[in-house]
Amino acid sequence: MTLTASVVGASGFAGGELLRLLTAHPEFEVVQATSRQYENRTVGYVHPNLRELDLRFSAPDDLDAVDALFAATPHGVSMENVEAYLDAADTLVDLSADFRLGSEAAYDQWYDGHTAPAYLDRAVYALPELGREGLDGADIVASGGCNATATMLALKPLVDAGLLTPDDQVVADLKVGSSEGGAGGGPASSHPERSGVVRPYAPTGHRHEAEIEEQLGLSLSFSVHAVDMVRGAAATCHTFPTGGKAAEGEIETPDLWSAYRDAYEDEPFVRLVAGGGGVYRYPEPKSVAGTNLAEVGFAADGDRVVAFAAIDNVMKGAAGQAVHAANLAFGLDETAGLNQLGLHPVGSP
Amino acid sequence: MTLTASVVGASGFAGGELLRLLTAHPEFEVVQATSRQYENRTVGYVHPNLRELDLRFSAPDDLDAVDALFAATPHGVSMENVEAYLDAADTLVDLSADFRLGSEAAYDQWYDGHTAPAYLDRAVYALPELGREGLDGADIVASGGCNATATMLALKPLVDAGLLTPDDQVVADLKVGSSEGGAGGGPASSHPERSGVVRPYAPTGHRHEAEIEEQLGLSLSFSVHAVDMVRGAAATCHTFPTGGKAAEGEIETPDLWSAYRDAYEDEPFVRLVAGGGGVYRYPEPKSVAGTNLAEVGFAADGDRVVAFAAIDNVMKGAAGQAVHAANLAFGLDETAGLNQLGLHPVGSP
Amino acid sequence: MTLTASVVGASGFAGGELLRLLTAHPEFEVVQATSRQYENRTVGYVHPNLRELDLRFSAPDDLDAVDALFAATPHGVSMENVEAYLDAADTLVDLSADFRLGSEAAYDQWYDGHTAPAYLDRAVYALPELGREGLDGADIVASGGCNATATMLALKPLVDAGLLTPDDQVVADLKVGSSEGGAGGGPASSHPERSGVVRPYAPTGHRHEAEIEEQLGLSLSFSVHAVDMVRGAAATCHTFPTGGKAAEGEIETPDLWSAYRDAYEDEPFVRLVAGGGGVYRYPEPKSVAGTNLAEVGFAADGDRVVAFAAIDNVMKGAAGQAVHAANLAFGLDETAGLNQLGLHPVGSP
Amino acid sequence: MTLTASVVGASGFAGGELLRLLTAHPEFEVVQATSRQYENRTVGYVHPNLRELDLRFSAPDDLDAVDALFAATPHGVSMENVEAYLDAADTLVDLSADFRLGSEAAYDQWYDGHTAPAYLDRAVYALPELGREGLDGADIVASGGCNATATMLALKPLVDAGLLTPDDQVVADLKVGSSEGGAGGGPASSHPERSGVVRPYAPTGHRHEAEIEEQLGLSLSFSVHAVDMVRGAAATCHTFPTGGKAAEGEIETPDLWSAYRDAYEDEPFVRLVAGGGGVYRYPEPKSVAGTNLAEVGFAADGDRVVAFAAIDNVMKGAAGQAVHAANLAFGLDETAGLNQLGLHPVGSP
Repeated sequence: MTLTASVVGASGFAGGELLRLLTAHPEFEVVQATSRQYENRTVGYVHPNLRELDLRFSAPDDLDAVDALFAATPHGVSMENVEAYLDAADTLVDLSADFRLGSEAAYDQWYDGHTAPAYLDRAVYALPELGREGLDGADIVASGGCNATATMLALKPLVDAGLLTPDDQVVADLKVGSSEGGAGGGPASSHPERSGVVRPYAPTGHRHEAEIEEQLGLSLSFSVHAVDMVRGAAATCHTFPTGGKAAEGEIETPDLWSAYRDAYEDEPFVRLVAGGGGVYRYPEPKSVAGTNLAEVGFAADGDRVVAFAAIDNVMKGAAGQAVHAANLAFGLDETAGLNQLGLHPVGSP
Repeated sequence: MTLTASVVGASGFAGGELLRLLTAHPEFEVVQATSRQYENRTVGYVHPNLRELDLRFSAPDDLDAVDALFAATPHGVSMENVEAYLDAADTLVDLSADFRLGSEAAYDQWYDGHTAPAYLDRAVYALPELGREGLDGADIVASGGCNATATMLALKPLVDAGLLTPDDQVVADLKVGSSEGGAGGGPASSHPERSGVVRPYAPTGHRHEAEIEEQLGLSLSFSVHAVDMVRGAAATCHTFPTGGKAAEGEIETPDLWSAYRDAYEDEPFVRLVAGGGGVYRYPEPKSVAGTNLAEVGFAADGDRVVAFAAIDNVMKGAAGQAVHAANLAFGLDETAGLNQLGLHPVGSP
Repeated sequence: MTLTASVVGASGFAGGELLRLLTAHPEFEVVQATSRQYENRTVGYVHPNLRELDLRFSAPDDLDAVDALFAATPHGVSMENVEAYLDAADTLVDLSADFRLGSEAAYDQWYDGHTAPAYLDRAVYALPELGREGLDGADIVASGGCNATATMLALKPLVDAGLLTPDDQVVADLKVGSSEGGAGGGPASSHPERSGVVRPYAPTGHRHEAEIEEQLGLSLSFSVHAVDMVRGAAATCHTFPTGGKAAEGEIETPDLWSAYRDAYEDEPFVRLVAGGGGVYRYPEPKSVAGTNLAEVGFAADGDRVVAFAAIDNVMKGAAGQAVHAANLAFGLDETAGLNQLGLHPVGSP
Repeated sequence: MTLTASVVGASGFAGGELLRLLTAHPEFEVVQATSRQYENRTVGYVHPNLRELDLRFSAPDDLDAVDALFAATPHGVSMENVEAYLDAADTLVDLSADFRLGSEAAYDQWYDGHTAPAYLDRAVYALPELGREGLDGADIVASGGCNATATMLALKPLVDAGLLTPDDQVVADLKVGSSEGGAGGGPASSHPERSGVVRPYAPTGHRHEAEIEEQLGLSLSFSVHAVDMVRGAAATCHTFPTGGKAAEGEIETPDLWSAYRDAYEDEPFVRLVAGGGGVYRYPEPKSVAGTNLAEVGFAADGDRVVAFAAIDNVMKGAAGQAVHAANLAFGLDETAGLNQLGLHPVGSP
């Protein structure tokens, strides 16, 4: 079986990563890659890692009929084009925020008005480690956002184990790489200004809060910092659980191991890293760079539990997650095309 | 007037920075720089920025009589040598943690046993923005630690204004540069392993908590992350104030401006940065690299106030703070020798 | 068919990369990984990308019988142990310099005395793009060095085309990443000292000159600079050809395209990049990070031809080249296990 | 005495650095800083290191009368406005290339047509270490370019000593930081694309060749590489001298020490670094970051002499050199305002 796939918005970072993954995927074949800006250029012109591909960007106006259309465009584009995408494809895997929230009201609260609210119900949110329900056979998949993914992977085991309750205090402090700013990042992304930073770029009000609160039923404080790496998102979640064992006394490390193992023992893309020796004792984006893995870990500290997760934002936070969701949507082996090992050593991932 | 000064532990990063500052200082003259490892080498052998200095390291066994002895040695060395230091110098400015805490009990809780507890009472803690009492004429100055300095500068205005009370929740999430690991940083500091990291190196239990709690009367949760820069410490303090205006409703941005201006309007080394436009809207270590400045800022977010501070850990977090304290101890203009402007652009600071 | 393999010196950077490649290789199975320092530790303790592997380091004293033994030890170790290696394995693939030169005399000129000169003749030098003769069935393979590989890949087409003659002036100016210093890089490799450098670490006398001169029959001037990346080696070869078309007048770009295409058109691991538009117009280490590819390019400039090559020094400059050579030695598809695509964007590769 | 100064093009990197230097200069007072893009913004809006300055950008249309006007605009602007600049100021210190070449013919060969060729004769080229003739009292100063400065400082002693003759082979291989691309660097300067690079951005035909050939009387091959730092330019000049001692045999290290000491022993901004021990054995941009110093060094290698120079391109390659030249033009102490010590450790300078 070969499934045909197209990538809309293929000149961006997530789009390029989709091309990389789908090209090496055992079940998908890329038949179209769109980019208005780079129409007729080879994909290698923009993505030097893909110079060997015999593929040119086409304008997004004339979409081929495909099994799966991956939309890696800026927020707002998919909602404008959802009908065209669904005309062209059996399944739309959308990497933007357009279909991530469950209701028009929620959308309007965090973003501008939604122009295709009728499709919100049909969309299935995809962060498979939170649940795979509805993904098999879905016709609109809303792939989870990078910072939300890291945060939720860190927190979910505490929620599942009943330690963290909806009223508990949660502070999520994220550190992210420059690729989150996209391929045309603007003045703040220029190398002289962006190198070596610790920059609170979204100290409050980051829109990924919305999907976290909707998916996990938690209210949380969320701050995002730019740091000097290209790929990577690391969430440090300072939580103050009051449920379950926490109600009886301090949570101890073995309680946390139980919670995290229960949550993730069968997950192919989660790796638990919590303490131990050597240089790499907690989750780090470097350790998963270029892979679809999330490293997840924790540390107990009295009434505080610090929960960590680290991902490659372009992979597990975007293209990898989208391919994972597509594998599930089409009933394939869910790890197909996603078994890359990371590198060591590696610089800025 | 010229005051003589010696630097013990002068081959380390803080020691080298002391040499840089004291060499250009209008009132101090460096007469001795010690290093057991590099005895007889020129200081420029280790510190390439100081090649022009006609000064060689001597062993720390034979100390010159000086007005001020700056001890920039690892923790534990100053307590072992405090009598020798005080024999040699009128004033000991200690950059280690040895004399920062007020009592032997506090010391024993966080560090190993103290070997010179009789001197703890004589030592004056120095983070001048917290208070200058006792610094004029002090004979032992305990210069505040880097991460504690950043954290306390962020929080102090909230305490002073009565917004933050001792029982309020405070999470301090720090991002620090590799110079904090010192000149012999070990395997985790090697370039291939340390480049591009977001590494939770002290997720809990960092010993700077002790001095913060002692100085500010707050209990806080404290986590430190290594990120890819050389100089710099950035504190993001997620606070949930319940005092003063916070008791009456949400704290608004103008309330915070009042609190921070009240706390720092006369401080020569504090710069308030909170919102506004452009690329640099909040405190960043880059913006103060090479200077004794702290950038301090804040953001209101419902019941949360996020307080930020960014410093150069080698300067405001170590050598600059020590010189600032020495200026005060000797009754000099407190900014003497500390008026460097930072650079723009600059990479990893 | 499954071939068994062991990696000696598996805790180093090249050793870890061999584990990564051989684990995913369709024909090889890793049965032993040795490290004296980390005996009994899991390989994931040192190499965080390999945490999933169920494999522990063993001491190098008791070698399993294998089809292929990959030696990734410091120079000098393989010559001391060559008999033990050949007792254990049908084929020794050596990544050190010990068997790269053709004669004891050459070895003694550039290194210290050779302790197993009798084996020099049996060893086959492996940079497959220079020639595959002798590799099929070889029992000692000497895998080419990283900086030599980059330099020779840049120059070979000029030699093959008769443009560059043995007496022509060639200056090779290399820029390399910190992984070349190995896992225990010493003070110059510590992050604070190594970040942001342009450091002439081997301005003259780099020992890779020896194998270049032996393999290409050229005499060249060779200087190596450390720059801020982890993986990567980039060679800029300033050449002044006098042969062939150069004897008749200036060499033009089409002449160079002919020469480079002739040399590499059938090579699976060489990508020609020379001019064109966009951001990536010449060979860059970033574009091949994590892959076994070499980017090779050129620019004509009057009587000068600038020849470029960029590789990932841990891959094409070490582990990838060794696996490539092993594939050839065992008669496998030469690209087996080496088809990884690179990443875009990527920071310090 | 206080001299008034204005900076045209003050929102760029060199312009900001001029503001930093002139603000702290004992003899100059900044009265105007122009920027069309940021008119009415504070200078701190763009340059976070200058937040304390009470100065706003004005449009460049209405220039104040000043003693010195520093023009830090892109190439082509000064020639269009030279009359206005000279109307406003006694002395124009131009940081662009507009007045660096001696003749209209030379200009037309390397750049587009010159629109104010009548002023070329009046302009005095300023790289003071090459000669200070004409600078005292000059009314147009053409401050030397960054890459040319580094290259010429490396080579001049070899020329002065008669070792390097006009027909000798010289290859200059430069490695430069991202600040050379300016404040609006475009796609190739975005952090994800620019991080970790070794990128041959001007393999041939860099326009700084013109001033080097004019000033030193040498013909040279010139290639410029972008590497991962923000500030800094490092020149590695591979030379093959045939004059003087070189005609009699190989040049030895003591010959080179003589040549370099003779050339620079009285120069306040040149530091010789050539071999020795420790981590910093040759010129490095890091060691001079933020200063007006050039590190210069060399290594002998048979018939090759490798000559090195490292500068901070924003300082010695632009603003520092311009202030140095202004000091000379106005008869001030030439080091006034330029005595900053560098930092250690420092990341990407």
